[in-house]
Amino acid sequence: MISIRRFGESDWPCVWAFLRATFDAGDTCVFAPDSAEADIHRAWIESPSATYVATAEDGRILGSYYLRPNQPGLGSHVCNCTYVVAPPARGQGLATLMCEHSQLEAVAMGFRAMQFNLVVSTDDRALRLWQKLGFGVIGTLPRAFHHQRFGYVDAFVMYKELVTQV
Amino acid sequence: MISIRRFGESDWPCVWAFLRATFDAGDTCVFAPDSAEADIHRAWIESPSATYVATAEDGRILGSYYLRPNQPGLGSHVCNCTYVVAPPARGQGLATLMCEHSQLEAVAMGFRAMQFNLVVSTDDRALRLWQKLGFGVIGTLPRAFHHQRFGYVDAFVMYKELVTQV
Repeated sequence: MISIRRFGESDWPCVWAFLRATFDAGDTCVFAPDSAEADIHRAWIESPSATYVATAEDGRILGSYYLRPNQPGLGSHVCNCTYVVAPPARGQGLATLMCEHSQLEAVAMGFRAMQFNLVVSTDDRALRLWQKLGFGVIGTLPRAFHHQRFGYVDAFVMYKELVTQV
Repeated sequence: MISIRRFGESDWPCVWAFLRATFDAGDTCVFAPDSAEADIHRAWIESPSATYVATAEDGRILGSYYLRPNQPGLGSHVCNCTYVVAPPARGQGLATLMCEHSQLEAVAMGFRAMQFNLVVSTDDRALRLWQKLGFGVIGTLPRAFHHQRFGYVDAFVMYKELVTQV
């Protein structure tokens, strides 16, 4: 049984370990392989509206995501999330659980839509997953992601409205 | 004869006056009408890679823009700019001059593309201008801008590659 709760500062060493492992691959996430811990702490924990961790029954942390406004002011009703699943926990539906959780949280916080700014075009699994969860491809940004194996590759902007009434 | 130079801190009172006047309208720019001066100083001056002002021959400041990476890390080769023309100087080609200037500056700084994240769909003039200057509409974000007169309206993501060789 997996549960999702707010991040607490004592979770950081574990979260940082799998964030670093994920960013080191340089194939799915915008954060660079050589990112400094303080910069990622700021981006993942300090800047967002909220950060969450997914945990196993025994308390092990299996993944984490943050939620924040994607733009200031007159664009701040659209949120943005980034999800990372710890390598040993991949393939178990964690990203789906976190994404569904984030949509409920976002609506509870008053957000009206969710936007992913850079879905890497070579990351078929993520693309299919977000589409299955109701996100549409708004458009393709040519060579907007610097893939660490493939060089500059396209990235998709994806979007889902969470609240449709005015 | 209009020239464009780097912003200096003594320019701030003048720049802030026309930024505030522009944001107060709430129809073209993502910054909210009630934005605090310190927040806009951070967004316009402190956070970007560089900020510029366009000046008349007599030194009057006619407009300003900032240039920054649109994303961290593996997306940081794509830049983002926001341009504001002071109300009395509108209709004289200032936005075109600043946008052309920013593209040269961006290339000189090593950026490979420029992205506008939220071009308000009701702002026909901006849309036509960016298209004329070589930017394409990547896609349409449904109701992503909270227009102060029209409510939630669509916004375009626009993009131009500045460097095409690998």
